[in-house]
Amino acid sequence: IEQHNDKALKQLLQDFHYADIAEILDELHLKEAMYIIKLLDSETTSEVLMELDEDNREKVLENLSIKEIAEEVEELDTDDAADIIAELPEERRQAVISNIEDAEHQAEIKELLAYDQDTAGGLMAKELVKVYETWTVAGCLRRIRGQAKEVTRVHSIYVVTKDEKLIGRLSLKDLITAKNEQKIADIYISNVDFVYVDEDVEEVARVMQKYDLEAIPVIDQNKTLLGRITIDDIVDVIREEADKDYQLAAGISQDVEADDSIWQLTRARLPWLVLGLFGGLGSVFIMEGYEDALNHYKELFFFTPLIAAMAGNVGVQSSAIIVQGLANDVVKGSLLSRLLKEIGLSLINGAVLGILVILFGQLMGMPLKFSLTIAISMMSVIIIAALIGTFVPIILDKRGIDPAIATGPFITTSNDIFGIFLFFYIAKLILGF
Amino acid sequence: IEQHNDKALKQLLQDFHYADIAEILDELHLKEAMYIIKLLDSETTSEVLMELDEDNREKVLENLSIKEIAEEVEELDTDDAADIIAELPEERRQAVISNIEDAEHQAEIKELLAYDQDTAGGLMAKELVKVYETWTVAGCLRRIRGQAKEVTRVHSIYVVTKDEKLIGRLSLKDLITAKNEQKIADIYISNVDFVYVDEDVEEVARVMQKYDLEAIPVIDQNKTLLGRITIDDIVDVIREEADKDYQLAAGISQDVEADDSIWQLTRARLPWLVLGLFGGLGSVFIMEGYEDALNHYKELFFFTPLIAAMAGNVGVQSSAIIVQGLANDVVKGSLLSRLLKEIGLSLINGAVLGILVILFGQLMGMPLKFSLTIAISMMSVIIIAALIGTFVPIILDKRGIDPAIATGPFITTSNDIFGIFLFFYIAKLILGF
Repeated sequence: IEQHNDKALKQLLQDFHYADIAEILDELHLKEAMYIIKLLDSETTSEVLMELDEDNREKVLENLSIKEIAEEVEELDTDDAADIIAELPEERRQAVISNIEDAEHQAEIKELLAYDQDTAGGLMAKELVKVYETWTVAGCLRRIRGQAKEVTRVHSIYVVTKDEKLIGRLSLKDLITAKNEQKIADIYISNVDFVYVDEDVEEVARVMQKYDLEAIPVIDQNKTLLGRITIDDIVDVIREEADKDYQLAAGISQDVEADDSIWQLTRARLPWLVLGLFGGLGSVFIMEGYEDALNHYKELFFFTPLIAAMAGNVGVQSSAIIVQGLANDVVKGSLLSRLLKEIGLSLINGAVLGILVILFGQLMGMPLKFSLTIAISMMSVIIIAALIGTFVPIILDKRGIDPAIATGPFITTSNDIFGIFLFFYIAKLILGF
Repeated sequence: IEQHNDKALKQLLQDFHYADIAEILDELHLKEAMYIIKLLDSETTSEVLMELDEDNREKVLENLSIKEIAEEVEELDTDDAADIIAELPEERRQAVISNIEDAEHQAEIKELLAYDQDTAGGLMAKELVKVYETWTVAGCLRRIRGQAKEVTRVHSIYVVTKDEKLIGRLSLKDLITAKNEQKIADIYISNVDFVYVDEDVEEVARVMQKYDLEAIPVIDQNKTLLGRITIDDIVDVIREEADKDYQLAAGISQDVEADDSIWQLTRARLPWLVLGLFGGLGSVFIMEGYEDALNHYKELFFFTPLIAAMAGNVGVQSSAIIVQGLANDVVKGSLLSRLLKEIGLSLINGAVLGILVILFGQLMGMPLKFSLTIAISMMSVIIIAALIGTFVPIILDKRGIDPAIATGPFITTSNDIFGIFLFFYIAKLILGF
């Protein structure tokens, strides 16, 4: 297909959705991708650009002139346009902005770029359909036809006062079922959800999910309507948030993907491994302190990976449940009842696992006293590990720190050290070496 | 507030959104919650029911008569109604269905209940706005006013032939900007995305996200329009999917929440702990095989938790990246290039960690040969662990098994055993005990 058969290619691509074209381009080499991009009309190109993988988009943008980028940006909704510009290197950013011909579009993008990416302002688009309370239904319909052309999808129609303050909403459905001569002021619904422009995106996601909203207006402290956020942007936020928690739990500290460079992956992974290493070296220290036990109970040392694994697994389980509960806002009840529950849970799990260890010991012909020691100290380790796994995230959350950092190697490592220490300590108490 | 002051309570609750009422009820005791539910009108009750926590909803439903449930169900959209009925015990299910007065609603719910919960059919609602290609714009608007009253939100208008086959769509925007006398056949967009009724929900979520859709029509093999799925249902699917992967990674095998019962939590957690236990006991076996080394190199045994932790951490990191990549469909390139990349990455990480171990050894006054042995075998363990972590999920995925099961205790446990074996094997090769 790459025989520079422009006409056939154009024909072929016309029938594709831009998300599909982006997928194809992601697979091609940069040179081929650039060639195809130049073939597409600028409206398609801009949509395709938005769907490209971030790294590939960066490369494509590097190969486009300031003027070309400005043209693409012109085609995009303000929120997408601002996102693209924000990805450019500082020096090209200004040049692209000043090359945008539509003055209003330019001003809106400038405004959006000023907001923090993690707030409602950074997520919202300026495109929306708004009507003034003084209009009539007929006049409204006429004007909406004009406004709606700029807006990809009409979700809600926002009703504002003369000085742009949000006072309510109107669904397109209500509008077409109303009589022509009615005034907006008489038919609008004053009960409207909104978020402030400096609200955290995760909170916006929570509000929109809770109330099943598909779009939400964004206002400033004076209630002036600034923009709107749609559910498709929120879907990305939700997925990124869940992915981030998961990655932290796995010991990956930055948002990386399988196809990122080795250097990026190392930066995200190595710090947690170093933490794990220090934990492991800590265990070496602890065991050297109990070196005497080697003479009588060398088997104790064979069980250390088992104890460390149990402490780690239990801690990760407990913390994952709490972290997800906190993220989804479903952790209720008092700390005391949670404490009792975790202890009860650990006792059940610990008892079952302890019995298995004793059975194993009998099979291997170990003295019963020795198996019992291992079973009892393992149970204690499981209880402590569950408590650490449960309460460290809760405490972090109360202090305003993201509890997700506590689910991964952090909990595993501290539980490893603590578990091994406790194991030898209890073993010494019982066996008395 | 619980002094049975009905009037004041009613007044108060009227101003609340049903999601807020549900949140309040979730916090109350069953008796109080039931009392409030009886106060609410049946439209509010039904919406509140949908927003309740699953466990609480079950309890509330147990306390409602068949007739009362049927009344609530009558108020709900077909998809929500079917979900509620599906949660009832088998014997009440039939009774509730036959108590639904509206025959059409009843038939639609029966139809929805027949679909598998994990397919498009199980997620879709029957409520939608459809027009026949032969209608005119004016006639269309008139009829839509009627249909739209039943539909909470109009997303798209689907265009069908006389025999109900889906042929295109129409946005409400297009409709109000078209001329009254035009025929639908002339203005509809034939390019319409759809899913088949037996499509997996995760695939539906992928399609809707990829093409940024807010609603998608569901058809059968004959292209007959059966229903539609909206983005808010998909948001739940996406979150549940991400949560599920995360829980599996943490060693939790069922969808549990922090507030579930001890028994539910045990069932979800214990199996993975038992797996971990067997892994640990496996390590005991391996170390007993190398018991002779105790005489000369007892410190080797102090390092086993470190090796196990490294093998586990690296494996979890690698598998998490791959599992997320597979879930988000961004894993590209050949297996060979991925193999080389993982080896490169492990070499860098392993080298840094190895140097730290050697430094630690020097500080502790260990013989250089011994520190080197530990560093080298640790590096080998890291490389193997990364390869297992990367390729086990890929292989599972290729065989159609959910790769997420391989990110948690499964990888940790097998890497623990494998790591400890490799560690002693290499140490023996170098130190020759």
